[in-house]
Parts: sequence; C-alpha cells; structure tokens
Amino acid sequence: MEQTKIILDENEMPKKWYNILADLPSPIDPPLDPRTWQPINPEALEPIFAKELIRQEMSSERYIDIPEEILDVYRLWRPSPLFRAHQLEKVLKTPAKIYYKYEGVSPAGSHKTNTSIAQAYYNMKEGTERLTTETGAGQWGSALSLACNYFELDCKVYMVRSSYYQKPYRKSLMTLWGGNVVPSPSSDTAFGRKILQEQPDTPGSLGIAISEAVEDAIAHENTKYTLGSVLNHVVLHQTVIGAECKKQLEQVEEYPDVVIGCCGGGSNLGGIGLEFIKDRLEGKHNARVVAVEPSACPTLTRGEYRYDFGDTAEMTPLLKMYTLGHDHVPPAIHAGGLRYHGDSPIISKLCAEGLMEAVSYDQKEVFDTAVQFARTEGIVPAPESAHAIRCAIDEALAARQTGEEKVLLFNLSGHGHFDMASYDKYFSGELD
Amino acid sequence: MEQTKIILDENEMPKKWYNILADLPSPIDPPLDPRTWQPINPEALEPIFAKELIRQEMSSERYIDIPEEILDVYRLWRPSPLFRAHQLEKVLKTPAKIYYKYEGVSPAGSHKTNTSIAQAYYNMKEGTERLTTETGAGQWGSALSLACNYFELDCKVYMVRSSYYQKPYRKSLMTLWGGNVVPSPSSDTAFGRKILQEQPDTPGSLGIAISEAVEDAIAHENTKYTLGSVLNHVVLHQTVIGAECKKQLEQVEEYPDVVIGCCGGGSNLGGIGLEFIKDRLEGKHNARVVAVEPSACPTLTRGEYRYDFGDTAEMTPLLKMYTLGHDHVPPAIHAGGLRYHGDSPIISKLCAEGLMEAVSYDQKEVFDTAVQFARTEGIVPAPESAHAIRCAIDEALAARQTGEEKVLLFNLSGHGHFDMASYDKYFSGELD
Repeated sequence: MEQTKIILDENEMPKKWYNILADLPSPIDPPLDPRTWQPINPEALEPIFAKELIRQEMSSERYIDIPEEILDVYRLWRPSPLFRAHQLEKVLKTPAKIYYKYEGVSPAGSHKTNTSIAQAYYNMKEGTERLTTETGAGQWGSALSLACNYFELDCKVYMVRSSYYQKPYRKSLMTLWGGNVVPSPSSDTAFGRKILQEQPDTPGSLGIAISEAVEDAIAHENTKYTLGSVLNHVVLHQTVIGAECKKQLEQVEEYPDVVIGCCGGGSNLGGIGLEFIKDRLEGKHNARVVAVEPSACPTLTRGEYRYDFGDTAEMTPLLKMYTLGHDHVPPAIHAGGLRYHGDSPIISKLCAEGLMEAVSYDQKEVFDTAVQFARTEGIVPAPESAHAIRCAIDEALAARQTGEEKVLLFNLSGHGHFDMASYDKYFSGELD
Repeated sequence: MEQTKIILDENEMPKKWYNILADLPSPIDPPLDPRTWQPINPEALEPIFAKELIRQEMSSERYIDIPEEILDVYRLWRPSPLFRAHQLEKVLKTPAKIYYKYEGVSPAGSHKTNTSIAQAYYNMKEGTERLTTETGAGQWGSALSLACNYFELDCKVYMVRSSYYQKPYRKSLMTLWGGNVVPSPSSDTAFGRKILQEQPDTPGSLGIAISEAVEDAIAHENTKYTLGSVLNHVVLHQTVIGAECKKQLEQVEEYPDVVIGCCGGGSNLGGIGLEFIKDRLEGKHNARVVAVEPSACPTLTRGEYRYDFGDTAEMTPLLKMYTLGHDHVPPAIHAGGLRYHGDSPIISKLCAEGLMEAVSYDQKEVFDTAVQFARTEGIVPAPESAHAIRCAIDEALAARQTGEEKVLLFNLSGHGHFDMASYDKYFSGELD
C-alpha cells in the first residue's frame, strides 16, 4: 500500500509565519475606531491586546520569525501528520486522492494551540498576568487554558452557554489546565447581566461572549483580551499548518487542486489555505481554496461584505468583513465553533475578490459525514471539522463523475472526543 | 532545546511480533482444562477463539510475522511517537532523562488497538461473523469496536457496570464504530442474570464481564470471544511498542535503565517491557522492568502465584498467575482498566522469577500525578496510564537524591479524554 501518514521531523517545522498582508493585490481595509469610524490608531488597541500582537496585526512583513520559546512548545505536537485517506477513497470509489492534515494531535485537540501559545507567550513577555477570552465549542478556551498554564498566566474563559451545557467535559479540560470557565452570558460583567435580564433564555453567542471578555480585560489590572480566530495575527499564527502541508505533499510529489477548511472565524482555513493562495497570487499554481460553513450561520455564503462590529456590545473595532449583523444569534447547532456572525477580514477579502470560494451544509448531512469518516478513517472528527470533510467528499464524488485524478487537501482541524453528546443526539435522531 | 519527539517513518514499523515464550529460562506453566485440571488441548479452545490466535497463544516461534493487512491498519497511527519529558524533568529538578511512549495516538485512544486489529483480522479470515468481549474502562471495548468496523464483524461488548456509568461517552464511542454495548452484569446471559439476582448493587468486575462474553460466544453461531489483555497472544501483539521504543532510543543513543508500565492484565507493560527483558535474558543489558498497579487491586504485590480461573463463573481455562481470587470484586476505582483479579501468565512468571518488579499506588496520589503531568507535558493521561507516570516520577526523584543521570522509559498507554468525569471528581474532592 502507498504511504498512509506523511510525517516531518521536528527540524523541518516552519520557523516563520506567513503574512499574506504583504502579498494581497490591494491593501486590506483597516479596522475602524468604534467611536469615530476612522482608521484606528494601534495605540487605541493597547488596553486590550499585547503590543507585539497589535504590531503583527498591522504588519506588512511577508514573514515573521517564530520565537524559539514558542517553537519549543509547538514541538509537543508539531509537525502534525498529513494522512492519505485510503479507506475513504476506496469507499467513495473515487479516482481523487484525498489528503488530510490532522491538527487534533495537539494536547488541546485542535489547531487553536498554534495561536494560543503565541498569544500567551507575547503577553507573558510584556508583563500581562491574566488573559480573558470567549469560546464557542470550547476548542479555543481549552487551547488558551493550556497556553496560560505553560506561561503561568491566569485565564478566564467566557463559554457560549449552549456549548457550555452541550459539552460539559470541555469545562473539565479547561479546569484541568487551570482555566476559570463561566457560561456566557454571565453575571460577571455588566453586559452579561444586561443580556441575562433582557433574554434570560438566550443560548448565548460568540458576539456576546466577546463583549464580556473585552469588558473584563478593560476592567481588570494587568489583564488583556485574546481572540481565537478572525484577526490577522491569529490567522498568521495558523499558517504553520499550510507550510507543513506543502512540504509533506512535496515528499509525495503532489500539489493540491482543491484546499478545503471549515470556516467560523476563518483561522484554520487561513492556516491551511493561505500558503496556496500565495502560490496563486504568484502565478505558480492555481489551487481552489474552499471555505465550508454551516447553513445555520452562512456568513460568507449569505452575509454582506461591509464594516461591522466583532461583538454584540459594539466594544470592538469595526472590521470590514462578511457579516450576518453583530446582533445575530445563530441557532444552537453542535458545531459551536462555527457560530460566529462575522468572518476574518483576510478570508472575507479573498472571497470578495474571487480568490476563495464558500459553500455551506446542513447539520444533518455534516454528521452523516462525520460518522462515515469515523467508520472509514477511524478518527472521530469535531463537528466543525466535519464540514470540511463533507466538502472534500463532494469534490471526490464530482471527480468520480468526471474521472479526474484530482488531489484534494482538507484540514481536519480537531477531534471530536469532547463532542460525543452531539454524536449521541445524532444516533438517537434528536439532531435538529 | 534537545529533541522533544522521536518519530519513525512508516517503513520503520516493526514487521514481526516478539514471542518471549521462545526465550524464557523455563517453560511457562500450561493453561489447564477447567473440567479436568489437566493441560488443555488447543482444540478445546476453538469454540471461543480463532485457530490462529490459539496457535499464537501456544507458539514457541521467537518472531511471528505481522500480516500486511494488519500493518496497513497499524499505519493509521503507528509508529507512535516517543517523547522526551523536558518540562516534567525541569519541574522535578531531576538529572534523569524521562522518555514516554505515547499510545494514545491510535483512533481509539490507547495501545489496545494493536491487538484488537489483529484479533478481528484473524477471526474475519476464519469466517467469524461476530465477536464478544468484556471491557473495564472501555479502552478495550472501543478498540475492538473500531477493529470490528474495519473487518466488518458484529461486536458485542459487556462493559463493567461501574465504568459504564462513570464514562458514558465511552459507550458513545463504541456505538459510533458500530459496537453494541451493555453494562455487565447484564440480563443478556444466564450468568449475568444470576449475579443481578444475587447482588443487584454490584459494581461489576472484569471477571463477571468475561464470563458473560464467553457464555455469549459459546451460545451464538459464528461468534467468538476476544480478550483485551492477560493472554499470551494479546501480549504478543503489543510487542510492537517496545520494538519501536528501542529503535527510537537508538536514534538518540540511549538505552533505558528502568522501563515502566501500568499493569491490569499486563498487556501494555508486556508490550513495552518484553523487548528489554529479552536483552536482559541475553545478557546484553540490565534494564529494570516495573509493573505499576493500584493498591485497590494489588494482584502482583499482594496476590498469590497459583492456578486460578480467568473469570468469575469458572468457564475459562485455569491460568498460572498472580491472583486475588477469581471471585474478588475490587472497589470501583476510576482506573477501571486495572480492576482485574488476575494477571498475564507471562508477566506473572517474570515477576515470580525476579525478572520484573511490581509496585502499587493509591488512587489519590495517581490523580495528583495525572494533573501534574497534564500541566507539564500537556497530554491528559488515562487514569490507568497515570500509574506508570507516578512510578517514573518516583524514580526521577530518587535519581535526584543520588545524582544519577538515569534513563527512564514509561508507557503512556492512553489518553484520558473519556475520563474527565473522574478528573471532575478529583477536583471536587469526591475521589475516594
């Protein structure tokens, strides 16, 4: 049999992050100050973000060196394996070759650690003692708890209420790494109390949880806020994924025709895709890059491309992005990590300019796929990641129709070990 | 920093299992027929086991080839990584070098897949259509469900009642791979119904669950029984672990002074340790090999070395092993995989002859260790595997006292992603 796992040695781990801002055909629209609607002064962001992260957010350097201390932590799970989905190909009877990058090997179970480690590190270096954040499905909250534990920072996580109760053991995992988790909206912030009073039964949303985490960071000494997706520096930190994929595919002398990632805020998609968009911008190759989102929260496929707030309380800068409106509360689907009203400005711009495509799927068909994948490839996917698998399968089936030996690459961004309650609902027929 | 992960390419995966029966200083005592107490005729085992597995159980060949079809499935996660525990060493201020083999990378989350794939494969080849088994913590039941899914066999799992309720998502995982799971004692067997009538509140035990699974296999057409530990052929299949470790340590020019594994039935310990016992028997090296068990089920440290039944209902052959008595029901500790009254005849013999050592730890100190490990190395260990970590830490602390630069190797046999309820109990102070 041909190779199943393509692996890299530690010394082949990328030493730089790739910043696509240096290569975009036209500059990205700047974030606006929520009070003046004028381009924001970087200093205005310092109450909530570490300076180095603000610098990276606005940087036009093409490559940014990864500090040795961050590489040392990355070594615990990076480089991550690239798998050839032999079993899945066989079942689909497709001539396509399906490769998937597996980010679930990180201790927290997803790609999120690529940026949580970086964000905690820079904050530690600048004297921050406590970080706040929001989390949807809990992948990001787990990743930040792990990172804060490494760099000895306190960690407060506002977890979207619907996910908090859907995935009880995510909270246990964060607690194990020393994180302090509350369901959002919570009574710990003024904005949380307001929402609780107005809508006591709300499932919560990432927009609300972000407002709480930002308010908390501003209200407390030596405390900063961190975000697990959307922002340029977050997407930047994820580019190690695509850089590794490229080296791994070179080992087997392949280049992808289609690169696929699920998309909530856009960081795992950017992480795997931007390296291939770069080749496209340089005229070297022409891989299609596809964003996959839930039909229940169709930001890229049905939203508007305009300036909007990142949060519900209108505390964050305005970002130019695809959005469903910052007060939109998506239904409580099980892919909690994809329930965001907006999207990464980088991903949004690439979609708007036709450099990236977007598709959406219903929850039921995504879970059908998750089960099919677990029964062929073995790995239990996170419901979020299963969106990418669904799209890869559709591409493989299309290739069967046309007989093309396409090379497909998708990001299996995380495992579903903490999503078993959702699988239970699927099997008992209770999934909406 | 020195290397963190030592990895091997797929083509460096061992192609043979190592059978220590060929090398023991004196022959192992044979299994006895439960009716006659005479050495059992291999054919008497055919109603419950596949013929090839019986052949392997009694084989005196030193190496047994691993079939290509099994290697193809192993490729999904093998070779598994060997980690150097840099962070843990730093925290312990030890001159010892601590290495751990991580078997949690298999889709089912533990070393158990090394044998479940083999057992399902041989049964499939011989025309078996359905497999039965018992499971404690659920690691083995998950691994067998995964394997049966690959080779298209039906799978019935009798899960020890206390674990069934402690770890609800283990059942979900088995269901996802198509396994049919019931809590044991169950009403599906005559023996289960008898126990339920006599002791309606029993937490169950591996001994009871084995009796049910054997009864079921005998009672149904084209059905065989499989065991996840204890037997020679099971230990045999696990020897890929130690063979990989040896190659990985050679890469960094090390040889272990101490090799450590937790021990319930003994398969993960045998898997990592026998390769080093072989060197010891050949006079090449002199690594100590240490079995670590829970004080709540101290088979090797406090049991007797004698013939005993493998199950409670006295249906299995008699095995010469350390035992607490086949009607012993250990307390419902959270390391459900270590709650077995007996032990592998191979491990038992090695302990009896002074070629292996055994120690035991209390549940509380094991969980202290599990938390310390998660907070230093990141990975959340299964409670079973944490026993091995505890012992490695004690060896590292002893090395700090003596100043010796010892090389320690332990088997991190599985992750604890499905054991978070036990971690919750630890944090809430409810652990006995």
